[in-house]
Amino acid sequence: MPENYFVVSETEHNALIQAAYQHRGFHADESAEGARFCAEASRHGIRTHNGIKALHLDHLFGSGSKGCVPGAQIEVKSSRFEAAKIWNANKKLGQSTAYRAMDEAIRLADKYGVGQVSVDNAFHYLWGGGYVMDAARRGYIAYTNCTAALAEVVPFGGKFPTLGTNPHSWGFPTTEAVGYPIVIDWATSVVAMGRVQQLAREGKQLPPDAAVDANGTPTTDPTKAKYLMPFGAHKGYGLSLINEIVAGFIGGSIPTIRNRWEQAEGDKGTCCFFFQVIHPDALSGGAFAKGRNQAQNVKAVIADVLGHGNEKCMLPGQLEAGWARHTAAAGGLLFTKAELDAFDEIAKECGRPAWNRAAFKTYAV
Amino acid sequence: MPENYFVVSETEHNALIQAAYQHRGFHADESAEGARFCAEASRHGIRTHNGIKALHLDHLFGSGSKGCVPGAQIEVKSSRFEAAKIWNANKKLGQSTAYRAMDEAIRLADKYGVGQVSVDNAFHYLWGGGYVMDAARRGYIAYTNCTAALAEVVPFGGKFPTLGTNPHSWGFPTTEAVGYPIVIDWATSVVAMGRVQQLAREGKQLPPDAAVDANGTPTTDPTKAKYLMPFGAHKGYGLSLINEIVAGFIGGSIPTIRNRWEQAEGDKGTCCFFFQVIHPDALSGGAFAKGRNQAQNVKAVIADVLGHGNEKCMLPGQLEAGWARHTAAAGGLLFTKAELDAFDEIAKECGRPAWNRAAFKTYAV
Repeated sequence: MPENYFVVSETEHNALIQAAYQHRGFHADESAEGARFCAEASRHGIRTHNGIKALHLDHLFGSGSKGCVPGAQIEVKSSRFEAAKIWNANKKLGQSTAYRAMDEAIRLADKYGVGQVSVDNAFHYLWGGGYVMDAARRGYIAYTNCTAALAEVVPFGGKFPTLGTNPHSWGFPTTEAVGYPIVIDWATSVVAMGRVQQLAREGKQLPPDAAVDANGTPTTDPTKAKYLMPFGAHKGYGLSLINEIVAGFIGGSIPTIRNRWEQAEGDKGTCCFFFQVIHPDALSGGAFAKGRNQAQNVKAVIADVLGHGNEKCMLPGQLEAGWARHTAAAGGLLFTKAELDAFDEIAKECGRPAWNRAAFKTYAV
Repeated sequence: MPENYFVVSETEHNALIQAAYQHRGFHADESAEGARFCAEASRHGIRTHNGIKALHLDHLFGSGSKGCVPGAQIEVKSSRFEAAKIWNANKKLGQSTAYRAMDEAIRLADKYGVGQVSVDNAFHYLWGGGYVMDAARRGYIAYTNCTAALAEVVPFGGKFPTLGTNPHSWGFPTTEAVGYPIVIDWATSVVAMGRVQQLAREGKQLPPDAAVDANGTPTTDPTKAKYLMPFGAHKGYGLSLINEIVAGFIGGSIPTIRNRWEQAEGDKGTCCFFFQVIHPDALSGGAFAKGRNQAQNVKAVIADVLGHGNEKCMLPGQLEAGWARHTAAAGGLLFTKAELDAFDEIAKECGRPAWNRAAFKTYAV
């Protein structure tokens, strides 16, 4: 059954989100960056990290708590290394920090082939996939990881959550090869805590080895599930550990006090970000088979992977690219009625009139 | 039950492996590098990628086939990028290429903060974990991936193997923090094909979602298993795809003809390597909580992850570090009787006397 969505112009959407951030004290530039990123999430069907979620996170962990400071200025730390920058974000809005860090990493990659920006005292950037997708669309290979807001994940073989859901995101400039950037982007837990709560509400079961109960015993009952498990046993555990270790090298403190400010007195409760960009020319040996150029070679590799009876396989980033095509066809961002209700609440908070939803077109997906 | 191992001096082990490589036409320097790496594998208990396996792989895919050329010279390709080198290995022995590439990436990281070496026309480097462990022991954060010899893994949702077991390896300089380098190192398949064959011989079952039969249907029966599955569903699939895409940007051709020289006529059948090193100072914001320095901060992070009831959890690299302690206590590399038999075969091949195993000490683990 196709579902009907309301079509909201990006201008109208961004104006509301920007106003909401500004109402909370954020400056115009960072509010605009925040809104622009939320539009990217909605454009690509990332409904878990859209404008509604962004403002909710800001309330819970950001300017409504001690995790994010409106108007914060990024401090560039001194470094003897030419291709690696280190920033103290001073708890600046995550989207602003991430956009600027990725721009800087691209600038470094243009010169050095590879460039990176490490960020201390960062605040939640929402959806790492969005930044690497943006860089990939501009022609670069990009990577980011961060330490997630809260320690909710139990290390492999353990009982207590001491790791974040710690996502990794890789983007590849494959638009010429497959029509869109391949974006590999996921948390290192099997599911998010929000998914556990959703399944509990719906009376459904969790997949196996996704969560543990209060005793650290795996359970598929979402009403008993208390903490999350890493995906892929020791392998996902290792991937989650990478973010904690990288953050530890940057300046992040111990995971279990992160964003738990009542426990973080005299300590650090902030997250860290890591961004890296590679120029595709900096990888190229220039000797592609059968006279192909680099993009044609990547296209041939992907065609081989998805050939031989694998034609139904998806590429990472394909769903997001498909949703962006719907967004373009509809001529605006697509939202459900429940989402419009949430945007009305946001409008009310910052003293703006609710959207005139009767005037919105609808679009069926 | 403790198992008894024969203790073989590293000198004696390396002399045999070096002689075996030289007997096959490899030059003295590359044969010595090859032997040195095999000793590292055995020192750390990596029995799947020791000297026996190295010479067997060379026979199957290397100098005994068309994958590796003794005495090959590495060609440094021209590049406008300062921190990123591109090499054509011309099918040089994998251990030699990898050792040299990691040295070069370290040299670049010392100057630029991050450095990388991409390698086209590479031959199997055995155990990526060994190179990142070596770099981590020298104080660096290191990463490598490669395209595995054969396409044996079915993409998520597919039927036919078009991906290699494509491993990823990360090493962190955590000796000061935890006593050894943390090394996260695994293939992106649930198990290796060798493990499937071993379980079939032993009449045991495979774990779920590790392999498919000839029709592409998942099976736990190792006698029916024909191809491998990526770990963690779409997540492991994405990780495997990264190696193919990176290789595609470097110069690797389509995965299903890799090392299948009868199909690769007029095309490329070689593997690619990617190495990257980060200087830990190039990450440091210098503002660690509670007056800790960087190493103390990483130590505090790890202690928190493994605290709170998680004391029985392992760290990646811990088993390897434990085996290295056994090796040190025994005063030599540890091998089983079956392994000594295999080394005798290697000695016979290159016209050397078999080891006098009666003279070897034994050591119980």
